[in-house]
Amino acid sequence: MRIRGVERRTIRAADDGASVEILDQTRLPFEVVVRELRTLADAAEAIASMRVRGAPLIGVTAAYGLGLALRCDASDAAIAAACKELLATRPTAVNLAAALDAVFAELLPLPPPERAAAAWAAAGRLADADVATNRAIGEHGLRLLEAAARTRGAPVRVLTHCNAGALATVDLGTALAPVYLAHERGTAVHVLVSETRPRNQGAGLTAFELAEQGVPHTVIADNAAGHLMQRGEVDLCLVGTDRTTVTGDVCNKVGTYLKALAARDSGVPFYAVVPSTSIDWELRSGAAIPIEERDEREVACVAGRAADGRLVEVRILPEASRAENPAFDVTPARLVTGLVTERGVCAASEEGLLALFPERRRPPGL
Amino acid sequence: MRIRGVERRTIRAADDGASVEILDQTRLPFEVVVRELRTLADAAEAIASMRVRGAPLIGVTAAYGLGLALRCDASDAAIAAACKELLATRPTAVNLAAALDAVFAELLPLPPPERAAAAWAAAGRLADADVATNRAIGEHGLRLLEAAARTRGAPVRVLTHCNAGALATVDLGTALAPVYLAHERGTAVHVLVSETRPRNQGAGLTAFELAEQGVPHTVIADNAAGHLMQRGEVDLCLVGTDRTTVTGDVCNKVGTYLKALAARDSGVPFYAVVPSTSIDWELRSGAAIPIEERDEREVACVAGRAADGRLVEVRILPEASRAENPAFDVTPARLVTGLVTERGVCAASEEGLLALFPERRRPPGL
Repeated sequence: MRIRGVERRTIRAADDGASVEILDQTRLPFEVVVRELRTLADAAEAIASMRVRGAPLIGVTAAYGLGLALRCDASDAAIAAACKELLATRPTAVNLAAALDAVFAELLPLPPPERAAAAWAAAGRLADADVATNRAIGEHGLRLLEAAARTRGAPVRVLTHCNAGALATVDLGTALAPVYLAHERGTAVHVLVSETRPRNQGAGLTAFELAEQGVPHTVIADNAAGHLMQRGEVDLCLVGTDRTTVTGDVCNKVGTYLKALAARDSGVPFYAVVPSTSIDWELRSGAAIPIEERDEREVACVAGRAADGRLVEVRILPEASRAENPAFDVTPARLVTGLVTERGVCAASEEGLLALFPERRRPPGL
Repeated sequence: MRIRGVERRTIRAADDGASVEILDQTRLPFEVVVRELRTLADAAEAIASMRVRGAPLIGVTAAYGLGLALRCDASDAAIAAACKELLATRPTAVNLAAALDAVFAELLPLPPPERAAAAWAAAGRLADADVATNRAIGEHGLRLLEAAARTRGAPVRVLTHCNAGALATVDLGTALAPVYLAHERGTAVHVLVSETRPRNQGAGLTAFELAEQGVPHTVIADNAAGHLMQRGEVDLCLVGTDRTTVTGDVCNKVGTYLKALAARDSGVPFYAVVPSTSIDWELRSGAAIPIEERDEREVACVAGRAADGRLVEVRILPEASRAENPAFDVTPARLVTGLVTERGVCAASEEGLLALFPERRRPPGL
């Protein structure tokens, strides 16, 4: 993606395996701050405090975090401890565990002195694979936008929630990949960005990256999505996912479910954009996904830029009031028009997914 | 309601007809500031800038505003001009127009010198009627909460949106009236308050008045309402209304429709609390209600208290991004379990409303 006119990824590994550079997303949209992670603790802190966020990006960051840990101690016990620390940062997305599993499996057969370099290389391959996946997703999703442009006219009005853009991944994004390809190739799009309280990833991150790429967009309060769909002002919804069950239930940023209900009520197609790394092939019901409860402070306070230019956090709740802060919700498959994956678009169902990923079929009797 | 331990109404008229005192709701929950309105322009500004808000309260404030105008000029032309200025402040709620119509009808037959005092007295009667209406609503709604306590257990978990409490009225509130009566009379309630972006009337006003009355509550991001209903953590929804059609479509603060969709999807009863002053007996479809578009700045910026105690407004959007800000939405009658009025609870339908308000039936053929 371009940021301040310069092409870059969200995460960049030093060749010597000693550090990775991340874009600190807690400072966006107002300050572009690059931060260097040099230790396992740095990586875990960056994920937990959401300096990096988005299911694909936290997977890649965790893989690099494991690489950083192994520079100090590459024993089996150290690998296990590092994985445990990284896994504890965010419970909902499946990518984090999947990325660690993938790297872990490569490392164990190796003699300890080779492990750090191998982990670094494996993390790099995950990063490159993420970009390739997103490009393939973009191509498949682009056809949906082109079809909407033909039948509903241009610009195609796409509603998205939270940030499933380049900033949530290594580059290009998942839900926004089709939008970027459409914009590049001349299909006019206009993105309606729901601000995504409590952390405002829509207002702060999605709007930021769309603005940096020059894609027309409008921010709305989360509350306004239903009204706009009712009034016929949305052509389709594209959202990301942190974990999708094999049956097509989509766990994503809290509030996604409300948009899906509104889309269904107004006949607006609702697509979840699902890289296969976000599919939990073991899980048959979204109700079983652990939903992260985050600090009530995220609801009680809002960070932004004051008139004098300083970044300030303000409290919006009375001192006596408490808040509750579930970070995700589950949209049942019945509300999802389709899943956009790197292998194509399918129904939000086990059959749909297995038709695209036949290698995941289990032999009968298992 | 009690504020800082002292019983008071949101609006208080001076006996001499020269001024009214309002609680400046743009300063809540952090500062309790009383403001004096002495002119028509003061009253119009207080309504437009939402120093007073809530359909019932803006109706009463407008009536007093008319009284203030007539102290300077009580001619027919001046009354018409004052009504026009007040009507232009907020287009969606029907109470404002209804209150002005009621006072206007009383004034016209009077000689101009008697009109200012008559307007003042009429505004005072509207204020008292509002409190009486809310008390009756509270009694009817209380039965719903008591029934929920019997069947679902205590505390009854009530979800509300925006502020339809004492602060939205002269006193006691509409949607919160049943909650206050339940709390007073020993039926345990716990209120889930959706923060209600963009202006945070839930986080700032509902939470404030519940805290001041000692009613247990938790604030949630608007996005979290669907998740909590899905997980069985809400027993019923109570919301206010700015205008309800004779067919039972409920226009209320933007985001209400999303809560109603989630309630329907999870089998949670969804009640709109509707003083008859908020019913538009002429309108047969919610789609015909004018939806106020407010300044994009309300979405782009958030006001709150900084760590140093100052009230600060912070921008959360990139400078290059624009926002759209519809203030209300329409919940179709089919999603509404019932309407709680001052005469009882009825179905959200013309039949339901006319059974309670038979004087509104039109003779056949009209």
